[in-house]
Amino acid sequence: MPHLRSVLAALLSAGLLTTAAAAPRKAPAAAAPRPSAQDILAASPASDWRALDPEQTLLMDLAGGQVIIELAPRFAPAHAANIRALARGGYWDGLFVVRVQDNFVTQWGDPDADDPAKARPLPAGASARLPAEFSVPIDQIGRAAGFTRLPDVDGWAPRTGFAEGFAVAADPKSGRAWLAHCYGTVGAGRSDAVDSSNGAELYVVIGQAPRGLDLNITVVGRVIKGMELLSALPRGTAAMGFYDKPEQRTGIERIRLMAEVPAAERPALQVLRTESATWTRLLDARRYRGGWFVHSAGHIDVCSASVPTRPVPR
Amino acid sequence: MPHLRSVLAALLSAGLLTTAAAAPRKAPAAAAPRPSAQDILAASPASDWRALDPEQTLLMDLAGGQVIIELAPRFAPAHAANIRALARGGYWDGLFVVRVQDNFVTQWGDPDADDPAKARPLPAGASARLPAEFSVPIDQIGRAAGFTRLPDVDGWAPRTGFAEGFAVAADPKSGRAWLAHCYGTVGAGRSDAVDSSNGAELYVVIGQAPRGLDLNITVVGRVIKGMELLSALPRGTAAMGFYDKPEQRTGIERIRLMAEVPAAERPALQVLRTESATWTRLLDARRYRGGWFVHSAGHIDVCSASVPTRPVPR
Repeated sequence: MPHLRSVLAALLSAGLLTTAAAAPRKAPAAAAPRPSAQDILAASPASDWRALDPEQTLLMDLAGGQVIIELAPRFAPAHAANIRALARGGYWDGLFVVRVQDNFVTQWGDPDADDPAKARPLPAGASARLPAEFSVPIDQIGRAAGFTRLPDVDGWAPRTGFAEGFAVAADPKSGRAWLAHCYGTVGAGRSDAVDSSNGAELYVVIGQAPRGLDLNITVVGRVIKGMELLSALPRGTAAMGFYDKPEQRTGIERIRLMAEVPAAERPALQVLRTESATWTRLLDARRYRGGWFVHSAGHIDVCSASVPTRPVPR
Repeated sequence: MPHLRSVLAALLSAGLLTTAAAAPRKAPAAAAPRPSAQDILAASPASDWRALDPEQTLLMDLAGGQVIIELAPRFAPAHAANIRALARGGYWDGLFVVRVQDNFVTQWGDPDADDPAKARPLPAGASARLPAEFSVPIDQIGRAAGFTRLPDVDGWAPRTGFAEGFAVAADPKSGRAWLAHCYGTVGAGRSDAVDSSNGAELYVVIGQAPRGLDLNITVVGRVIKGMELLSALPRGTAAMGFYDKPEQRTGIERIRLMAEVPAAERPALQVLRTESATWTRLLDARRYRGGWFVHSAGHIDVCSASVPTRPVPR
C-alpha cells in the first residue's frame, strides 16, 4: 500500500503554489522544464512585492489568533471609509461571530443589532447608511489600479483577472468591473434595499466561490492571513448557520485599523503584486502542472489562485 | 443600520436552494414569476427521489456525529469494491483524521501506514494495489447512468453535468468522462505512481473546487451528509495541514458499509435524482435568482450546486 507520507505529499502541490517541472498539454515537444512555483518565488525581485497599507488593513483578534484583512477602497470607497471609522471607534471589540454556514460564509457583528434598546451605537464618524458599491467603471481599474487579465474562460463573467491583489470580474459591454466572491472574500451584509449595508455586519466566504453573489452586494476586502481562524469554526446548527445559543458564538476580542496599532505590533508581511511578472509566471505554473501530475488542465480560475504573502525580508 | 436578522436572512438564498420569483437577465418582459426552489421541491413527484444503496454507502462515525458517503462504482469500480472490503473488515475503526489543510482537503487513514511494523494490515478481500480509475468511456455514462448536461460554460472541461448525483466532466474529443473535484468530493490518495492508491487513505475537498486534480487521481465518492464534521475540524499547523502531534488528530470511531448496519440504524434519507426534471428546474432557479437578488448571473457551475437530500417521507 502507498506510504502515507508520500501519498499526502503527493497532494501538496494541488493545494499550494508548489508545482514542479511541467508536462503541459500543448507544450512544444522539446520544451525546457518549467520552473516550479518555489523557483519562481525565489527568483522574484523585491519590487514585485508590496507592503500592507496601514490605512487599508484590519487586524481582527480572536482568542485563536489574528486575522488580517485588506480593504478594497478602489472598489468600495464609502464602505472602506466607514469600516475604518468603525474600527477606529472600537465598534467590533467584544462583539461576536454570530453565524457559520458550511460551504458558504462566516459572519460577524452585533447580535443585538435588531433591538434598538440594546444595539451598540455606531461610533463617531461612521454612517448608518451608505450607497451600494457593487461595481465600478471598468476603465477606473485598468488605468488606476492595473489589471492582470486572465486569458482563461470564466462562466460567470466575460472577463476576469486581478487588480491590487483582488480577484476581479468585468463586462466590457456594461463597462463595469467588480470584485469576485472567492474563498476569503469579505463583504458587507445588506437587507433587501441595495443601499442598506454600512460595513458593521461583515461576512467572509468559507467555501466554494459563491459567484452568484457578485453584483448583488458590496465586497469590501479579503482575508490575507488567518482564514483558518474563521473557516474552521463550529457550524451553527440553527437555520442558515446561526448559533442556537449565545454561548456558542465566538468572541471578537477587537478589530483595529493597522494604522492605529503601534509599529512594533504591526504584522511584517508583504504581498505579491498581482501586476508583477512573478504573478503571471505563478499562474502559468498552476495551469501546467508537473511532478505528481499526469494531466494539466491548461486552465486557471480567478478563484482558484491565492496571492502569496511573505514575511518582510530582513 | 440594517437589522441583523434581515441582513443575514438576505444572504440565505445565496447558500441554499431557496430562490424566489426571479428577475432574469434575459427573461421575456411578461414572464411569469419563476417558482422558488422550495416550491420546486414541494412539487417534486416521489419518483424523482431515490433511496441510498446500502452496498454503495459508507457511514463514518466520529465523536461529533455521522458522515454519509456515497460511493461511485460507475466511475471507480475497483476502488469502490476495495473500499467496501475495507469497511467490511473494519479497517478504519479506531484510525484517524491525520490532515486538515485549509481551503483544500481533510484526509484520513492509518498514521502508521509508513511503518511496516506498525501499519494496520488490510483486511481479507482488500487489495493493496488497484488500477488507476481517473476516467471512463464517455458513452458508458450517458447510456448506463444518464447524464444531465449543463449548457453552462466551464473553463476546466469541454462538457459538464450530473450523473447519479455526481458532478461529472467530459471531453467528447478524448471520449472520456470523469468525476469533478467539488466541495464534498471524496478521493483516494496516491503516491507518484498512478496506480498506487487502494482506497485506504481517503480525502474530502473542504474548499474551492480543486479542479486541477481532475484526471490525476481516483475519485471514489462524495459526502452527502455531515460535511461540517469534516470541514470544521482544526487545521493542522504542520506542513500541508498535518497535525503536529498525534493527540491533535480526530479519531474515527468506525466506518461501516450501510449494508452491514442493522436496518433500524440505517439513515432514512433520499437523494434527488439528477436525471429528474426537478433537478433541472432547481438548476434554473439558481441561474436566475429572485427576491433579494438584483442581478442574476444566468449561469451555474457544476461545483456550485449541491444535490438535495431529504428524510424518507412517512
